[in-house]
Order: sequence, then structure tokens, then C-alpha cells
Amino acid sequence: MSEKLLKLGIPKGSLQNATFELFAKAGFNISDQQRSYFPRIDDDQIQLILLRAQEMSRYVEDGVLDAGFTGYDWIIENDSDIVEVCELLYSKSTAKPTKWVLAVPNESKTKKPEDLQGGIIATELVNATKKYFQKKKIDIKVEFSWGATEVKARLVDAIVELTETGSSLKANNLRIIDTIMTSTTRFIANKQAWKDKFKKEKIENISILLNAAIDARTKVGMKMNIAKKDLETVLKLLPAEKSPTVSNLVNSDYVAIEIIVDDDVERRLVPALKRAGASGIITYPLNKVIH
Amino acid sequence: MSEKLLKLGIPKGSLQNATFELFAKAGFNISDQQRSYFPRIDDDQIQLILLRAQEMSRYVEDGVLDAGFTGYDWIIENDSDIVEVCELLYSKSTAKPTKWVLAVPNESKTKKPEDLQGGIIATELVNATKKYFQKKKIDIKVEFSWGATEVKARLVDAIVELTETGSSLKANNLRIIDTIMTSTTRFIANKQAWKDKFKKEKIENISILLNAAIDARTKVGMKMNIAKKDLETVLKLLPAEKSPTVSNLVNSDYVAIEIIVDDDVERRLVPALKRAGASGIITYPLNKVIH
Amino acid sequence: MSEKLLKLGIPKGSLQNATFELFAKAGFNISDQQRSYFPRIDDDQIQLILLRAQEMSRYVEDGVLDAGFTGYDWIIENDSDIVEVCELLYSKSTAKPTKWVLAVPNESKTKKPEDLQGGIIATELVNATKKYFQKKKIDIKVEFSWGATEVKARLVDAIVELTETGSSLKANNLRIIDTIMTSTTRFIANKQAWKDKFKKEKIENISILLNAAIDARTKVGMKMNIAKKDLETVLKLLPAEKSPTVSNLVNSDYVAIEIIVDDDVERRLVPALKRAGASGIITYPLNKVIH
Amino acid sequence: MSEKLLKLGIPKGSLQNATFELFAKAGFNISDQQRSYFPRIDDDQIQLILLRAQEMSRYVEDGVLDAGFTGYDWIIENDSDIVEVCELLYSKSTAKPTKWVLAVPNESKTKKPEDLQGGIIATELVNATKKYFQKKKIDIKVEFSWGATEVKARLVDAIVELTETGSSLKANNLRIIDTIMTSTTRFIANKQAWKDKFKKEKIENISILLNAAIDARTKVGMKMNIAKKDLETVLKLLPAEKSPTVSNLVNSDYVAIEIIVDDDVERRLVPALKRAGASGIITYPLNKVIH
Amino acid sequence: MSEKLLKLGIPKGSLQNATFELFAKAGFNISDQQRSYFPRIDDDQIQLILLRAQEMSRYVEDGVLDAGFTGYDWIIENDSDIVEVCELLYSKSTAKPTKWVLAVPNESKTKKPEDLQGGIIATELVNATKKYFQKKKIDIKVEFSWGATEVKARLVDAIVELTETGSSLKANNLRIIDTIMTSTTRFIANKQAWKDKFKKEKIENISILLNAAIDARTKVGMKMNIAKKDLETVLKLLPAEKSPTVSNLVNSDYVAIEIIVDDDVERRLVPALKRAGASGIITYPLNKVIH
Amino acid sequence: MSEKLLKLGIPKGSLQNATFELFAKAGFNISDQQRSYFPRIDDDQIQLILLRAQEMSRYVEDGVLDAGFTGYDWIIENDSDIVEVCELLYSKSTAKPTKWVLAVPNESKTKKPEDLQGGIIATELVNATKKYFQKKKIDIKVEFSWGATEVKARLVDAIVELTETGSSLKANNLRIIDTIMTSTTRFIANKQAWKDKFKKEKIENISILLNAAIDARTKVGMKMNIAKKDLETVLKLLPAEKSPTVSNLVNSDYVAIEIIVDDDVERRLVPALKRAGASGIITYPLNKVIH
Repeated sequence: MSEKLLKLGIPKGSLQNATFELFAKAGFNISDQQRSYFPRIDDDQIQLILLRAQEMSRYVEDGVLDAGFTGYDWIIENDSDIVEVCELLYSKSTAKPTKWVLAVPNESKTKKPEDLQGGIIATELVNATKKYFQKKKIDIKVEFSWGATEVKARLVDAIVELTETGSSLKANNLRIIDTIMTSTTRFIANKQAWKDKFKKEKIENISILLNAAIDARTKVGMKMNIAKKDLETVLKLLPAEKSPTVSNLVNSDYVAIEIIVDDDVERRLVPALKRAGASGIITYPLNKVIH
Repeated sequence: MSEKLLKLGIPKGSLQNATFELFAKAGFNISDQQRSYFPRIDDDQIQLILLRAQEMSRYVEDGVLDAGFTGYDWIIENDSDIVEVCELLYSKSTAKPTKWVLAVPNESKTKKPEDLQGGIIATELVNATKKYFQKKKIDIKVEFSWGATEVKARLVDAIVELTETGSSLKANNLRIIDTIMTSTTRFIANKQAWKDKFKKEKIENISILLNAAIDARTKVGMKMNIAKKDLETVLKLLPAEKSPTVSNLVNSDYVAIEIIVDDDVERRLVPALKRAGASGIITYPLNKVIH
Repeated sequence: MSEKLLKLGIPKGSLQNATFELFAKAGFNISDQQRSYFPRIDDDQIQLILLRAQEMSRYVEDGVLDAGFTGYDWIIENDSDIVEVCELLYSKSTAKPTKWVLAVPNESKTKKPEDLQGGIIATELVNATKKYFQKKKIDIKVEFSWGATEVKARLVDAIVELTETGSSLKANNLRIIDTIMTSTTRFIANKQAWKDKFKKEKIENISILLNAAIDARTKVGMKMNIAKKDLETVLKLLPAEKSPTVSNLVNSDYVAIEIIVDDDVERRLVPALKRAGASGIITYPLNKVIH
Repeated sequence: MSEKLLKLGIPKGSLQNATFELFAKAGFNISDQQRSYFPRIDDDQIQLILLRAQEMSRYVEDGVLDAGFTGYDWIIENDSDIVEVCELLYSKSTAKPTKWVLAVPNESKTKKPEDLQGGIIATELVNATKKYFQKKKIDIKVEFSWGATEVKARLVDAIVELTETGSSLKANNLRIIDTIMTSTTRFIANKQAWKDKFKKEKIENISILLNAAIDARTKVGMKMNIAKKDLETVLKLLPAEKSPTVSNLVNSDYVAIEIIVDDDVERRLVPALKRAGASGIITYPLNKVIH
Repeated sequence: MSEKLLKLGIPKGSLQNATFELFAKAGFNISDQQRSYFPRIDDDQIQLILLRAQEMSRYVEDGVLDAGFTGYDWIIENDSDIVEVCELLYSKSTAKPTKWVLAVPNESKTKKPEDLQGGIIATELVNATKKYFQKKKIDIKVEFSWGATEVKARLVDAIVELTETGSSLKANNLRIIDTIMTSTTRFIANKQAWKDKFKKEKIENISILLNAAIDARTKVGMKMNIAKKDLETVLKLLPAEKSPTVSNLVNSDYVAIEIIVDDDVERRLVPALKRAGASGIITYPLNKVIH
Repeated sequence: MSEKLLKLGIPKGSLQNATFELFAKAGFNISDQQRSYFPRIDDDQIQLILLRAQEMSRYVEDGVLDAGFTGYDWIIENDSDIVEVCELLYSKSTAKPTKWVLAVPNESKTKKPEDLQGGIIATELVNATKKYFQKKKIDIKVEFSWGATEVKARLVDAIVELTETGSSLKANNLRIIDTIMTSTTRFIANKQAWKDKFKKEKIENISILLNAAIDARTKVGMKMNIAKKDLETVLKLLPAEKSPTVSNLVNSDYVAIEIIVDDDVERRLVPALKRAGASGIITYPLNKVIH
């Protein structure tokens, strides 16, 4: 195996496919995605290892991995001493941070954390939950929950559980009484690896490419031809913070305009441009956008 | 809930995924596509509701929905009083209208509708079938069929069934003796909603974006560089009804040509352009094409 | 059926989806991909037939098919007399040729082919295996293996089996002692069909479109704006063998640069260009690249 | 086809597997259970046809079928004129009748049917729902619902929906305000078929065998040896309404006792018998029990 | 590995589950049925190996296996020199022999084998097909078919294919013109193994247990109590060739009758016995029946 | 809810189906087995709750549950203070205790636990692993592993993992260097619940019924008729520790023999009895056997 090798942890489970898609969009070919814990990547200087997000930061801290992707929640839960390279927002639809909430059955009399004094809490996030209650000086017992935590809300006194949309809590007739923590995905590195010139540059390159791919996900390229007389009107419709590329055509009455816009801006812009006389409007997908 | 809200019905079942893909291509992010009857969309002014195509026009007529997507067949079957916003051809491969046909077993003696006098017909499209026979003054009994209609062709005297390719009829050894109705997908609106300024504009914007996405599905962007001396020859090869964008390059012996073509034209054009001396020919995918 | 019809065999099994995706990228719409042995394609002059790669070359030689896709290994195994139109490398990740290897259990004393004298070999590739041993003047019995060949390595004396990554052999604790043959995918034609003007041109057009789609898979389009003063520096970063398209902008201090690059070059180029002062760098996907 | 043939409808869907299992336990071999609408049965005098429970009674009334299995609810909904042969309780766990209930969202102000005056009801059971409201002289509009009725409770004013355990209603946060109808499975026959000697006897034989298999499902055979001196004590423990078979053994101090008991009685009896000195207690499964 | 070990081949594929169920009913516990090619069995003197029925007889002949289960068809196709231990009819529903038939498209002009002179036949059963035509002195070319043979009937001139019910041929619109061979499952042994005392006895014991389990599949135990006065009448109803076990009860007016009957006899007997005054009739399942 | 209610934890996951089957065989009907965490059981005095085996003993100790099923390993890992009611061996094939083993890669230089001094161990069984090494006075770091522990053997220095057959370790090329613990399933109770008369009796009854069902799994009932003259010979063949039930028949030359035997004894006995002249030998399945 090459001396110059970056051991990179990929989170197994809910983020796994999103991460592989992001690497693909960033320009890497990964094979054996579903079958192996060591998927192959077409870069000899990177070795991928699939691990659960929950244990990622421990293995990065131990130096078993040079870098990896995990949630802010598990970095805190594991109290890991690592370098945070960047936050990764994946895509607009998953960009909202997840939350760990304290929840009780709808029919429970518990209204606030203090009402749980002396009770039992079931959660996968034991340490962070203990700290939360210690800070509030509330005495509780925290039991580690191996999945299906919502179900336990009626066996013990309350649960601390992850929620993205709140739909699972709702389906179980649970009520949120407080938020313990919010979390997003982080790209983290081992402290020793970060001091290694090769590894640091490799990690930064991956960071640039992934972020360029993330930015491209919610943007499109847009092109149109404009009669020179309409140019000023059309330019006013375009987002102010972006400067479009305007190029002359052989037919000198017209110019071609090209611009990169957010896809929700596109939805608004397309009908407006049509009315303003733009012709041959097309939009096309992007792989990467670098600011 | 916002006052400004469009309640929009999406057809559950065979068109569901095609519709979601179309919305995605039109620039909307939809989540919970498979799990919920109320998928979330990243536009606060739209609420999506999944319903069967069969019942869509009734709920649009009742005002339970402001607008929705369904087949022409079910609008007629339900005799619904609604506004038809536009026809949606989804993509070239599904652009052929579906047909409701009157079919009998291959071994049946029935040759024409009149031979069914006094018989029983099984169909999901009861009302349209009754009207068809009333118009021909043929007396029949129509039984509603809950699926697997082809199987019933040998229990009763004939069936009226939907067919796209005829392959299911063929597999069941059935013979078509007449076509009752042809149908395509329609975007429909409630009459009151259509009088509401906000709702009408919202519906029209959705219609523009979906149609632009549909058009983009079967087109590609094509670029190439041409020596100025070959320009005339190459331009003759291009489809007459489209005007290519021709731009000067820094190297003044060449121009760059860009044009949007149908993908079946592309298949013919690529080898021809290669022979005509075009260099650096590439084609790329499009998200939207607005005429 | 049209007189002008090309009967084209598509390999069923592991290459099936890759082939359909390639045809899609080449601009063909194919339906009924999974359900039928005669998938429909939107070109009336082509009829597709799904057959196993193993038997493809026999049916092409017999004239049952005009052309088809199969592996070099099965052309040799069947000793088929056909025209090889071109090699198809599908995509970079599958571009490595597959190998047929002679393998024995890790614990076996067999070190070289000669040690197998008088033994039994299980394989799916009976004829090529016999030839290999005949050439070496080693006397063995070859039994045809219906799948699960790795398992038989411990029932008989050795196996000859296909390997892409060696992982299946490793999982079964087998050791490779020689390579019998390497193989890639080939587009082949019947000798009579190749003499028919219509069929030959049709086959060549398909070959051009498929290869253009294959080339596009590992390339991206890249655009950026460059201040004229930085142009020389930037041009040096770009791959020497490609000439970028440089066009003037209305803002005369800048030029727009557009270039097609391999996706592994893109991974290296993006950070370098960013540092060299390029602005508005984007990359976008391609459908076809014709040299 | 034989003159002596009983055309028998099997309900497709939720009761399908339970019905096939019952026929198997009754001694019939049925093949092609999942693949065909005409499963084969090893009795040349019976032809099976799979149809939805909803349409069964119509085809039995029309004489398309001689007999069939369906729910009481759909007999009433279709207002079918047929002979009811017997009620079938399948097994203890499914023996509770299903109910069609009138339900509204938890948050609705509707408390009683009268509050729905002038509203819209969505249901699959249109006719029975209309009759229910006509009888109460409440004016409502009933819309036929193609599945997912619970979801519609928040689109219209109320729904009428089937419920076995109430869990689906609960999951959708709905509240029951009345029961429209209760229903169990019925074995029904066409009136003409019931007058045909062969068909009536065939239907009755099937009824005997199915009911014997149903009875056997919740019973077990129990055997034990008892010292003659303990016989009286043990007999008192056994259910009074059953008479055990007592037989002498070669060893004349003991008798063997055999009895058929309900499986919930067995649960109580086994520990009690053990304490009373019974030896060699075993229980074994039964195929049929005929009273 | 024990000296006393029987290597036993189990057919992979369509017979696999039926074979495992039969071994279970015969009293063997087999684990890893789906995951391994070497399923474990709770008898240290047996080693199971999963192989395709097609290649079984070759490996038995070679001595790689001591014994195995396969079809008569593949013994003939492979021309294998083995000992046939017994025929296994598995169960009544699968007891019908399978057939290899010569089939052509419905629309073909071929009426009899002779019409195929000079043509191409596709089949998996190459050798047996060649022998069939050689015997009839018809000159044909036989191409080996890797599955989906029915589909090839329209590519070549005819096919030879396996059929159990004829439904697959029917679905492909094919017509049978002759039967080449009929086949059932056989338990076969290697000739050397058959001379080994330990192996022969082991094979025979397995044969006894499997056949006892097969017999039990279609039989039930039946018990009832009869008043002595009705005994003669009841005995006449019972199958003549079986002698029931009649035992006295403590209550001397009654006797208990026990008898083993075929399950199709049971269907006829149950209603008749009920009418003849038998009380407490029960039937129960059997594991093994030894004649 | 009834005052008299036993809250009973069922282990979710690998033992779940085996446990439900055992309850079914013990005579309980459980529904909603797969869909709900609170499956319904037809005994109003029992409430079932699905929890992971790993957390079961904690919730039993806390009194959240009255009783439950879990492994000995997790009782020790959690250091839970509970009552052990009985060991449950489920069935012969799963009766072997599972083992937690210390394993290293085949290629590792580690030969014994002491070689791991100063290293990292990944395991799901953190506490028991720590105790094991403390006792041996070896200093190691134990990291909790969220699944896929075998994969981590090459990231850290060794793993402690569960093994039933050793096949997963073998597939990952790992070598066992010691056994940390062996474990079987236990029925456990809360200490307070065990002092409650109702709950203790309920728990004991369940224990009796489950054990009777377990015993019945590997036994069969066997019956045969014997001529009185052969009786002595036959009796000698039967297992000495069991006394058969011998009863007179009406035909006084014969007796009927009935005996319960282990299924592996049955495999040996059947051929022997046949040779000894027994007639009408049958074996039948059992639901429960109580000693």
C-alpha cells in the first residue's frame, strides 16, 4: 500500500447514499458501494471505510482513520478531540439541521424538563442527555436505547430522540418539551493527520470538490438570446449579485446571455424572462460551481 | 396555513413517479414521495395531495382540490365540470394516448358491438361504457370490475379495458372489436379557483415550468466549432426551423455554433456533422426549453 | 415488418443495464427493458433481442441476428466466424478487461498447471480450457460447470473462472495459478449482414453514437471567465492536447474559456484554476463527445 | 369441461391466503395460488376463480359463479339476491366481525351524524352509507373513494371506513362517531345453483369440510396415562361438556385418556393435570374436528 | 473428516426447497439452507453439497459425490453410468412426470418433426435432442440455449423445452408437435460407493425415511368412536384394503377406531361417516407412514 | 387496563420469530407480530413488548417490565439484578450456546491475549470485555462497536464478537485466540414481580408451557401394531428409559404400541422396527410433551 494514503470514513446508514452521490458528482468513481465495507474509489491515495456515524469521531480521534464524515451530535456525545474541516450541507432539502428533542406522550402530565425529576429517560445519546440535565440540576436516570426509542416513551418517563420532520414523533403521539441539541454533518480530521502536509492538502482538495458539487445541486445554468434593445430590461430581472456573461453573436442585433442561478430563482425567472422578450431560453444541469 | 395556498392533486399509481420526476425537472424539490399522501414540496404556496386518477376530477369539481392531474377518460366518466388548463404529454415515449377498447376472447363468436345485445360487460369505466352502447341502441348490462378485468372476459360476454400497447390483451388471448375512447393526461382546475387571481397565476406558472421540462426531455444542446469556410455547408445540415447561435472566437478563422435539437435529430446529425468537418462536437442534457 | 430491419442482440445479465443506459445516453428510448425479451426501441429499423452473452456469437454467426454485443471470451469459446466491428469500453470503471483464471484452493499443493496432470477441472469455458491444456500437453478432464464454480474448487482439482476484482476467489479462499484468457466487450456482426449496404451503415452509425456516449461518460464541460491579463497563466494549466474555445465578452477585459476535460483531470484542475484567479468556474455533464 | 362443475369464487386480497390455507387444511391441494386467477384444485368438479370480495355477490347473483366467499358488507352494498350457505369464522383470531365506522378528524367539531348535514362523505361503501343517512333523514353527498380513505377525512367532512382493530384510524388521528355496519365472511350460492342437486351437495360438502378445518384450528388432541386410583380426580379437571375416550392398558393399574380440547383450555389444563398426577401428557395438532 | 462420510448432492434451484422440506419431514435438521453451498445437517455421517440438477449425475459418476438427487432427463443427457436407487415422487401435486417437448410457434407451418429437416433447434438438452432426430434420420443443427428457450422459438425453427403444465408454452404462443422424453426425480449413487457397506446402508436408510415422509404427505390419521351396534355399517364405508385398528373402551358399548387414509379419501369419508353415526371424528397430520 | 397484568419483554431481532413460534406452539395466538412493538396476545393478563435483547435486563431490573427473554451475555454486560426463571434451549438446532470470542486477523502476529497489551479492542460487549482483561491485568482500550465488528478487526488490534458457527469469522479471515463468555437464552423476572403471587404464578405457567413446547419440537409420537408373539423382541428395540403404552385390540392376537421418541431416535428406529415385523408404523407431530 502507498505511503501516501488517506484513510477516510464514510457514514454507514442514512447518509451513505447521499455521500456516495456527492462523491460521484465531485468526480470520483466508487464501486462496491453496497456490498463492501471498503468501497473502492478511483484515486489510489484514498482508502474508504464504512462506519456508523455514531462511532466515527472515536476512530478519527484514535488515528484509526485520518478523516471522516459524521454529525456534530456524535462528536459531542463522544467528546472527541478532532479537527473540524468544514460543515457540509449536502443539499437544500437536507440542509435543515436535525434536532435531538426531549419528548413525552401526548397524554403525559410532564410539561417541562423539571417535571421529570427522579424519572427514567431512554435515549441513544446518553452523555449529552446527562449533561443537559446536570446543567439544569435535575436528577434523572438515563438508559441507553437500542433503537425504537419512540416506543419506549410510554415505558419510561421521557425520551431524547432525533427528529428531522417531527413526523415519527407525531405518528407515535409524542409531544416535544425541549430541544437538547441541533446537529449538521461535519467533515472531521485527526489532529496528527492535519499536521501531515500530504494528508492536509488531500483533505482540503476533497473539501473543495464536495462543496463545489453541493453548490451545483441547487443551481442551473441558464442561457438565452436577447435583442440588444431589450438588454437593459432583461438585465434588471436577473439577480443583482450575479454578473451574467454577455457575448456578441455574429448577428450583431443580438447578444447571448449566460448566468448561473439558484433553482428556486429559476422557477420565478423563467416566466418573467419569457414575457420580457427573451428567446431561446434554456436551462441545463451543472456538476460543480466554484465561487 | 397560509391564505395563499394552492391545493394540488397528484395522481397516485402508474403516473405518480413520472409526475414527481417532472416536478423535479421543473425545479421543485419534493420529499416523502413514497411514504406520505401529503408529500412536501419546497414552495409554501403549494400543498400536494396524492389521489387516484379515477377520483381526481370529482374532488377538483367539489373544490376539495384547486387543481390536479388526471386522464381525459376519468373526466368524462365522472362527468366533471372543471377547467382544462392544458394537455401534458410527459415524454415522447408515453406521448401516445391510451385507449379504452371493447374486447372479447379470441374464441368468441362476437364480431361487432351489436352481437353483444342482451349480454354482460365488465369494466372499470361504467358510465362511458353505458353511453357508448346507449348511443348505438344496444341493450347490455354493465358490471363494475375491481381490477383484473381481462380475466373476466371469459366469465361475462365482453370487457371494456384500458390498453397502451395491447400486450396485456394479447397475453390473455383477447381480441379488440372497437375503441370506446382515447385519453391523455390533463391538468385541470376548479372553476372557482380559476377565477381567483393568485390561484390562476400559480396554476399557469406550474403549467409553463412543467411544459418547459417536458420539452427539454427529448432535446439536447449541441455545440461545435466550424471553420468559417465550412459554415455554409454545415448550416444546411441543421434543421431549417431552428436558428443556431453563432458566435465569434478569439481565433478568427473559426466560429462556435450552438443549437438545440430533438434527440432523434441528434442521432442523424452527429455522423453527418462529423463528415462535414465539424470539430469538437459535443451534446449536453437540458433541464428546460422555453419556446 | 420493414425490409430494412437490423436484428440486434443485447447481452442479458450483468451487462444488460449498462447496455441499456448506454443506448439511452446515445439517444435511443428503450421501453420494456426488464419485462420483455424483445424490448421496444424508438427506431423502426432496429429490432432488439435479449440473449445471454454466452450464446450471442453463435446466433450472429448463424444469421439469426445481424449484429450483437458479447465478450471476446465467448467468441473464442464458440469459435464463431463473425466480423468484429469495434471494442466497447463502456466506462472507465468497467474498462479493465475481465480475466479467466485457473485457480485452486489455498490449501492445495498444486503450484503450476503441470501439477494438474490427470485431474478434473470444472469451468463454464470448456473449449478454451481444453485448448489451453492441450497446448501445454497436459492431460486433464474438463467438466462443464453450471454456475457456483468457485464452490467446486474443493470437489474437483481446479477451476477456470471469470474474475474482475478477484474478490469472489478471495472470499472462497482460492489461489490463482495462471490466467487463461483476458476479455472485453465487442460489437460483432454477421458476415452477410456486413455486406448489406443498409445494415453495415446502420451498424456503423450505432457504433459512432455508442462510442460518443462512452467518451462523454468520463468527461465534463468546463467554463470560466478569465481576465485577459491572466489568460496565458491559465492556458498553461489546461491539458496541452486539448484546444480550449476562447470567446470575447462584451466586457472587453475578460474572455470566456470553454474546454472539455476528463473527469479525473477536472478533480486536479478545479483547485488549481481557483488559485490562478479564474472566476465563475462551472462544470456540466455531457451526453456525447465526438473527436 | 365436465357437465358436473362447480364454479367457485375465492376472494382476492386480504382473505386470499387465509382461504387457501383453509382449503389446504380441509384436504384440497391448490396450485398456482399467486400467479393465476384460475388456481388449479385437485378436484375435477370444482373450478376456482379469484375475484375481489367487493364484486363477488354480483357475479354469484348473475350466475357467472355458482358460489363464492365474500363479506356480509358487500352483499348488502350490492343488494344481491343470493343464498347464504353459512357464516365462516376462519379462526379465533380473525373471528371478530369487522366494522364500517363513520369517522372524523380528532380536531373536527363533529360529534354526531347529524352534525354532518350538507357535508361530503368519502367511502368505498357508497350505497350502504347513503341508506344509513337517508334513514336518519340527514342530507349528505357521498363520494366513492378509491382507497386511502383515511387520508381523505381531512379533505372532506367525514369518512366511512372498514376497521378491524382501529389502529389505522388511530394512526391517522381519526375519531369514530358511529358504526354503520358489522360484517363477517359468508359462503354464498346462486339461487339456480342451489336448486341443482349436484351443485347443492357439492357446496354442502365443501361447507362441512371447511367448518371441520376451522374447528380443528383452535383445538388440540390431548393424551395421558392415569393410575386408576386417580381417575376420578382427573376427570373432574376436564371440561364437563366433553366426554373423554378412556381405554384400558395392558398394565391394568392404568388407563389411557384421550380428549379434544380448545387450545386456551389446554393452556390452563396442562399445569393442573401435571399437579394431579397425570403422566406422559402430550398434546398434538388436529386437521379436522367433526361434532 | 470422518472416514464414514456420505457425500450427498442436493439439486439447487426448483427442487431445492422441496428437497429440504422432505429431509425435515424425514427427521433431519438442516441449517444454512439458503446461504451456503454446503448446508449443515444434524448427522455427522452425511455431507450435503448443493449442485445444479443438470450436472449432478456427472459428479456422481466421477465419484466427486457418493449419491445425489437429479432428474432422469439429465442422467440420459449426460449419459452417466450410475446406480439408480429409487424414484422419488415428492408429493401428489408434483408427482406428474415433467416432459421435454418439441415446440414451434403457433403460426409456423411445421406440423411434424420431419418438416424441420435442415433447420436449427434451440434447447438446453442438446444430446438427447440430437439422438431423437438421428433415430428419425432427420438432419438438423442443435444450438445450446442458455435459458429463455421459449423466446428463441421465433429466432430459430423449433425448440425442445421442459414443460410441466404447458402454461409457459401457451403464454409464448407455442404449439407442441412431439414429446422427446418424460422425466421424474431419481435418487442415484456412484457405482463404487454402492459396493461400500457403510455407504450402501446409509443410502438405503435415507431412501426409507424419505419415502416414508413422502407417503405421509398425502395421508392423515383418522379416529372416531362407534357404538358397537353401528360397527359393521361403518367398517363397510372404510377403504377395503386398509385394516383399521379397533380398540375397546372402558365404556363397553363403544369401540374406538383408528385408520390411516389418503387425504382425498378423507374428503369423501368425513361426510359419509358423520351420516353413519360416528361420533368424535377427528383427523390429524402424520410425519411418516411405513408400509 | 386490568390490575392483573404481566408486562413481558420479547427480544426483537434474531430470536424474535423463534420466540413467536414457540408461543404459538405453547398455545398462544399472537397477532401484529411484525408491524407493532406491542403485539397482541389472546391472554388479557399478558402485555407483550418488543425490545432488543441488549437492553432487556435493564428494563426488567428497573421494573419497566415484569419479565422478559434475553441472553446470559447481556445480563452480565448490564450487570442486572434480576431473577433467572429458567434457561430456554428453544430447539436442538439452536441449543448450542453462543460464544463471545477474542479474534484477530489471520495475518496478525497476536497469538495470545497478553500480546494485545496497550492496544485497542472493538466490541459490542464493552463491560464484559473490560472485566476479562482487568482480570488478566492486561491494559487495553475498549471501543464500543456499532455493528460490523468483524470489519474493524483490521482497523484496530482485535475484536470481541459473537459467534455461533464461526462462519462469519472465517469469511473475514479472522482467527480466534480466546473465548470470553458463552451464553444461552434466559427467562428473567423483576425481583418485585417475583414476590407478587399473581405475577409469579403467571410467569411459572408460561415457563411450563414454553418448555413443554420446546420438548415437543424434537420428539414425535410413534404408533404400530405388533403380533403378541413379537412383542418382547420389539420392546427391546425401544429406548429403555421410556415406557410405551400398550393397549389390547379387538383382534386379540395383536396389541397396539404407542411411544414418544426423540426425532433422531426415530431415524434409527424406523428401519429396525420394520425389519422386526411391526406393521402399520406411523409417526405424528406433537405440540407439547410434559414429563
